Amino acid sequence: MKKLILAYSGGLDTSYCAKYLSKEKGFEVHAVSVNTGGFSETEIKIMEEKAYAIGVASYVSINALTSFYQKVVRYLIYGNILKNNTYPLSVSAERIVQAIEIINHAKKIGAQYIAHGSTGAGNDQVRFDMIFQILAPEIEIITPIRDLQLSRESEIAYLEENGIEYSWEKAKYSINKGLWGTSVGGSETLTSHGTLPEEAYPSQLEETTPKKVVLTFTKGELTAIDGNKNAPQINIQLLSEMASKYAIGRDIHVGDTIIGIKGRVGFEAAAPIIIIKAHHLLEKHVLTKWQQHHKEYLANWYGMLLHEGQYLDEVMRNIESFLADSQKNVSGDVFATLLPYRFQLDGIASEHDLMNASFGSYGEMNKGWTAEDAKGFIKLTSNQNKIYYHVNGEL
Amino acid sequence: MKKLILAYSGGLDTSYCAKYLSKEKGFEVHAVSVNTGGFSETEIKIMEEKAYAIGVASYVSINALTSFYQKVVRYLIYGNILKNNTYPLSVSAERIVQAIEIINHAKKIGAQYIAHGSTGAGNDQVRFDMIFQILAPEIEIITPIRDLQLSRESEIAYLEENGIEYSWEKAKYSINKGLWGTSVGGSETLTSHGTLPEEAYPSQLEETTPKKVVLTFTKGELTAIDGNKNAPQINIQLLSEMASKYAIGRDIHVGDTIIGIKGRVGFEAAAPIIIIKAHHLLEKHVLTKWQQHHKEYLANWYGMLLHEGQYLDEVMRNIESFLADSQKNVSGDVFATLLPYRFQLDGIASEHDLMNASFGSYGEMNKGWTAEDAKGFIKLTSNQNKIYYHVNGEL
Amino acid sequence: MKKLILAYSGGLDTSYCAKYLSKEKGFEVHAVSVNTGGFSETEIKIMEEKAYAIGVASYVSINALTSFYQKVVRYLIYGNILKNNTYPLSVSAERIVQAIEIINHAKKIGAQYIAHGSTGAGNDQVRFDMIFQILAPEIEIITPIRDLQLSRESEIAYLEENGIEYSWEKAKYSINKGLWGTSVGGSETLTSHGTLPEEAYPSQLEETTPKKVVLTFTKGELTAIDGNKNAPQINIQLLSEMASKYAIGRDIHVGDTIIGIKGRVGFEAAAPIIIIKAHHLLEKHVLTKWQQHHKEYLANWYGMLLHEGQYLDEVMRNIESFLADSQKNVSGDVFATLLPYRFQLDGIASEHDLMNASFGSYGEMNKGWTAEDAKGFIKLTSNQNKIYYHVNGEL
Amino acid sequence: MKKLILAYSGGLDTSYCAKYLSKEKGFEVHAVSVNTGGFSETEIKIMEEKAYAIGVASYVSINALTSFYQKVVRYLIYGNILKNNTYPLSVSAERIVQAIEIINHAKKIGAQYIAHGSTGAGNDQVRFDMIFQILAPEIEIITPIRDLQLSRESEIAYLEENGIEYSWEKAKYSINKGLWGTSVGGSETLTSHGTLPEEAYPSQLEETTPKKVVLTFTKGELTAIDGNKNAPQINIQLLSEMASKYAIGRDIHVGDTIIGIKGRVGFEAAAPIIIIKAHHLLEKHVLTKWQQHHKEYLANWYGMLLHEGQYLDEVMRNIESFLADSQKNVSGDVFATLLPYRFQLDGIASEHDLMNASFGSYGEMNKGWTAEDAKGFIKLTSNQNKIYYHVNGEL
Repeated sequence: MKKLILAYSGGLDTSYCAKYLSKEKGFEVHAVSVNTGGFSETEIKIMEEKAYAIGVASYVSINALTSFYQKVVRYLIYGNILKNNTYPLSVSAERIVQAIEIINHAKKIGAQYIAHGSTGAGNDQVRFDMIFQILAPEIEIITPIRDLQLSRESEIAYLEENGIEYSWEKAKYSINKGLWGTSVGGSETLTSHGTLPEEAYPSQLEETTPKKVVLTFTKGELTAIDGNKNAPQINIQLLSEMASKYAIGRDIHVGDTIIGIKGRVGFEAAAPIIIIKAHHLLEKHVLTKWQQHHKEYLANWYGMLLHEGQYLDEVMRNIESFLADSQKNVSGDVFATLLPYRFQLDGIASEHDLMNASFGSYGEMNKGWTAEDAKGFIKLTSNQNKIYYHVNGEL
Repeated sequence: MKKLILAYSGGLDTSYCAKYLSKEKGFEVHAVSVNTGGFSETEIKIMEEKAYAIGVASYVSINALTSFYQKVVRYLIYGNILKNNTYPLSVSAERIVQAIEIINHAKKIGAQYIAHGSTGAGNDQVRFDMIFQILAPEIEIITPIRDLQLSRESEIAYLEENGIEYSWEKAKYSINKGLWGTSVGGSETLTSHGTLPEEAYPSQLEETTPKKVVLTFTKGELTAIDGNKNAPQINIQLLSEMASKYAIGRDIHVGDTIIGIKGRVGFEAAAPIIIIKAHHLLEKHVLTKWQQHHKEYLANWYGMLLHEGQYLDEVMRNIESFLADSQKNVSGDVFATLLPYRFQLDGIASEHDLMNASFGSYGEMNKGWTAEDAKGFIKLTSNQNKIYYHVNGEL
Repeated sequence: MKKLILAYSGGLDTSYCAKYLSKEKGFEVHAVSVNTGGFSETEIKIMEEKAYAIGVASYVSINALTSFYQKVVRYLIYGNILKNNTYPLSVSAERIVQAIEIINHAKKIGAQYIAHGSTGAGNDQVRFDMIFQILAPEIEIITPIRDLQLSRESEIAYLEENGIEYSWEKAKYSINKGLWGTSVGGSETLTSHGTLPEEAYPSQLEETTPKKVVLTFTKGELTAIDGNKNAPQINIQLLSEMASKYAIGRDIHVGDTIIGIKGRVGFEAAAPIIIIKAHHLLEKHVLTKWQQHHKEYLANWYGMLLHEGQYLDEVMRNIESFLADSQKNVSGDVFATLLPYRFQLDGIASEHDLMNASFGSYGEMNKGWTAEDAKGFIKLTSNQNKIYYHVNGEL
Repeated sequence: MKKLILAYSGGLDTSYCAKYLSKEKGFEVHAVSVNTGGFSETEIKIMEEKAYAIGVASYVSINALTSFYQKVVRYLIYGNILKNNTYPLSVSAERIVQAIEIINHAKKIGAQYIAHGSTGAGNDQVRFDMIFQILAPEIEIITPIRDLQLSRESEIAYLEENGIEYSWEKAKYSINKGLWGTSVGGSETLTSHGTLPEEAYPSQLEETTPKKVVLTFTKGELTAIDGNKNAPQINIQLLSEMASKYAIGRDIHVGDTIIGIKGRVGFEAAAPIIIIKAHHLLEKHVLTKWQQHHKEYLANWYGMLLHEGQYLDEVMRNIESFLADSQKNVSGDVFATLLPYRFQLDGIASEHDLMNASFGSYGEMNKGWTAEDAKGFIKLTSNQNKIYYHVNGEL
């Protein structure tokens, strides 16, 4: 029988795929979901039951929290990556790791087919298809939702005809949750000026008393919160829990999709935003000017290529080498204060801090050099433009 | 007699220079201050009186608000420039225009000498010296504060000996105010972790009721607020007045000085931050992906070279050409909401908006292409990495 | 009747298209060829006769020499653009302008269809299709060669059946000639190590006596050769004639096609290579360090996007603004010597030359500054790394 | 006694320093020369004798060939680095390693002073001073030539007075030889248009018969020539010997000095030029488009910072990580032909070659995709600009 792996989420589209592909197309459907931090154990249990109720041959939930952090998230932190200076690439990053986990699973169990539920209008189809094709060109990709372009109504009708009745009513807001943030889409984000109402966000303001928190980084990784050490991926979850009570990290991202149209999506990403800004502040103290400059150039590219599904391009490994090497001294504490809807970075302490008063302080009396040294420095630094103006005339 | 232009601010250092240079060194001292939006008429009047009381040969206040906006500020907006992703370059930008205005004045009145009050430990000495040397290599630069490295106490004592008694007690926070923001330095900013207290900031929270505001951009320039048209530099001042009541735009900038040490400075820049973020949002809707990408590259450089006093390098004119050309379609309204200590961008409306539903919407059903088109796109986009993995083996 | 514009070259593929589209598909075929400097008057005459013999409704030859130079070539010179540091983008640049001229012609005569003879395996299909679709989405694109994937033999047989007999035997080397160089493809270039034999190149070594030549640039454009002034596009042709007798400018380009595969193609481009290298040398003398640096960054991109058919992306106009602005002082003479298979640049003379002995000469005694100035310069330039090593320990 | 290390070359300037510093200034002078491939054993012997004749306390020659290759040269190859697209940074690279070796030696023997013979008008003073100051801020730098600005005549006179008589007549051309090339300065290079005569170059044309040579690279390093394996630094020397008989690799470099003036210098660097071009060609076949693109960006910077003496900036280590990581598949043979005054690259063979006919060949019939795939690719790739033109009107 034709063995097929289905990237399964328990939603209407992939439930339709599960039924349609097994019943109408005669595939042996093996459902797989990959947990990058968005699903609770209960949710996975429900997904499993639903899958078997629809009649899949097997269901597996892959826990990819650690591999998600190791393969992608830590580089997003090293690079202080916010797409278009706003969005932590929550979903983009997740999809990559999900695609890799699923295709590896497909190869392991010897599937000849792989299916996903993406439409033909978004980024996810590109991320899934590209990674599947590159890592397993021999496995055929099946995409009923993209191909058939069915309405929700006809999908629901088909499932009901086949005895599968769940409450499929469309949530007002489509939510995608993972370790690195939650995206929120709704009718408002389909326009250029709609704002999401408070209630659209999964977390609600629960705390208003300012709270101080100390984030400890070790070679660029978040190794402790308020002195409590944990694996970085756990710390992200802990900080997320703490900070989302302050409704921190909400925004709307406007960006270019891989297929050339503009898109707009809301998100809530308390921990990612705080971590990236805290990490960036620490770097401002411990890295040289040129390290910061070229890191930013490469990190921008890392974010763009990741967003566009090009994670497997070898240049990504090269950039990761640079980023990892740049974190050698990015160790120390960052002091933050959580406040309603916002946070504040109060400062840092690091033994690698280059803001070192023994060499003189900005604007204060110069200790390490004389007035004559400064004049010589300025004179020679002016040389080229002095010649330029002498030769070419003035402004 | 030896004619000397003194860049004069009315503070202790330049007051000392005025007296010292005329009395001890025999210069004919002509004091000049350049107003880039930081001085009120009253403050200028006081400066003038003080200058004459000290005994200068003449005092002139140059109004450089418009030239400041035209020469520098508008490019900072075109480029969405925040140094180290934080600081609108408030002071850096100002110094450039002040230096140019002063040296042009010096040439006009035929001065052989030019003096400023910078120390040998900061950025300003570089900005002043460089621009002076390049534009007028024939005029000699005199810098008593840098050369003599006097304490405040000895400066005050000298002035008192010469009958000049003002209350020179050091303000707890040194403030530099201009059109494009106010910097705030204090003992806290000399460390890596001190935070400025509320009262250190010139503006205080006065309003807590959320307020909606519409910013209208025309080819990248802020031409109206809530429908009221004014020159962009006036709009900046109006927005500043409105938004600083919400205590918006405060932060601490950590950066690399031109002379290689790290520095930290507080600032308050409500209007600059709102304008840059609003302008950036509008650009996300109207510019192509590659326009945004390369604008950011060049704008980063514009900010760095401006910060480092290299405004006169011809590459700055070349970058300005690119930036100005990129603003052709950056016209439309940006909707913002002012809130205590923060603001929110609600969306935009522009006839150049590329997020245009008639071509299909992100994630919704594809209108402009078929599923087959999308598959073909992904297939060919995967080509190179497919070959790479085929040739070199897998992940 | 269905009016169709055919991009016609007189070769087998487009001749087949002309017959096939009129006879089998019932189109009114209007053949158009665009001359970007590659066709002589005789060749155009022959093309015309052939077109009418095949039975087209009309034939037009558009002279695009000047628009080719103005729209593209001059920016390739301003930017010193050699793709992969080797190839002057001879064909890529041409195709863009041909596509624009053809689609404009199609709109002018009210055609509903437009056809070209590209295969599905190359870059040209992308360039043609993209520009056609963007500038005239209402005109349908027809591509028989890509769609039918016919062999040469069956194309010839079809034409003979229809009474059209020319000698269609395949040239051993496929040649594409234009103002900005000639490409040469053959069985050797389909491998990674084959070299083209001497006779594959259109020009042959005819001169061996070294010849000195003076190239005069005015704001970046080649305005005179040996003192004789002409329009730049004419000068390119004159220099090409002179230099190709020395068999200069031959090489093999290895590059990434738009569709992700690697390709290899020979070329001969005596004038482009000499002009770019001469122009670049002049720039080394008259531009500042940062002008050169950022020009190179943008020019690389200009070349990449042009190669990939993205000429219409608005960022190309922004880059052109930068490049044009950077040429303000790129005026002067460059002295070259033509030699068999190579050339040598002997030097330059320009009133904008920044290598100006009155400011001191490299390595000679310093005139403009003292030993103390130099020490101060070096001291402060070392500051950051001095602190870095102090804080972080040694190498 | 005051222990001083002198960077010694046996030339007039450093001989003067040796005598002057010991006799007039009372230092215990320890002469050190660092051989980066430019000195033969005989030359070192002569240097040693001369040093002792002048009266140094000790003389040491440090063999830095391997560390020069490992620390710098291999990264210049990985990065295909030619400054201003011309110059392999022969001298710049050498100075860095010489400075590091010398300062490490100074620390090892406990010197309190370190001297070098650079003038105040060149790049070398910056490279030496910076590295000395950063790695050993406690050691004082002494520079008699820069400080005293003596003429050659007075230096010779002083040495003769002290009984040191060598033939110091100035060579017509100043030559600096090392593993990575030889620089040639003369009166011609002090102008913008002078050319060096044949005899100024150390190597002369001796061979005119074309010679084929196979260069084997292993992970970016030149591991064999014509199948003979050797350490890369030895291969560079062997290739240099072979290729300089063809007078290959001569040119004149025009560049910006660290101190802002323009400089011009001749060089001969047969092996560096051939190796870089061969390595680059191999990379065009085995790296992805984005690997090549970002390598070039970083390599440009590596060259610039190295040239400017910033080798110790930590960003250089980060870039080295990227470059080294990018070389994973840069293995294979490059086929070259040596010819009088030039060479030709004939092609490559590599098991990592991405120009792989099984995926389809450029311009030939498409094997891996259909015409429909290509159309879909082009359609979606056009999307953004199609929208742009629709919204904003046409060209």
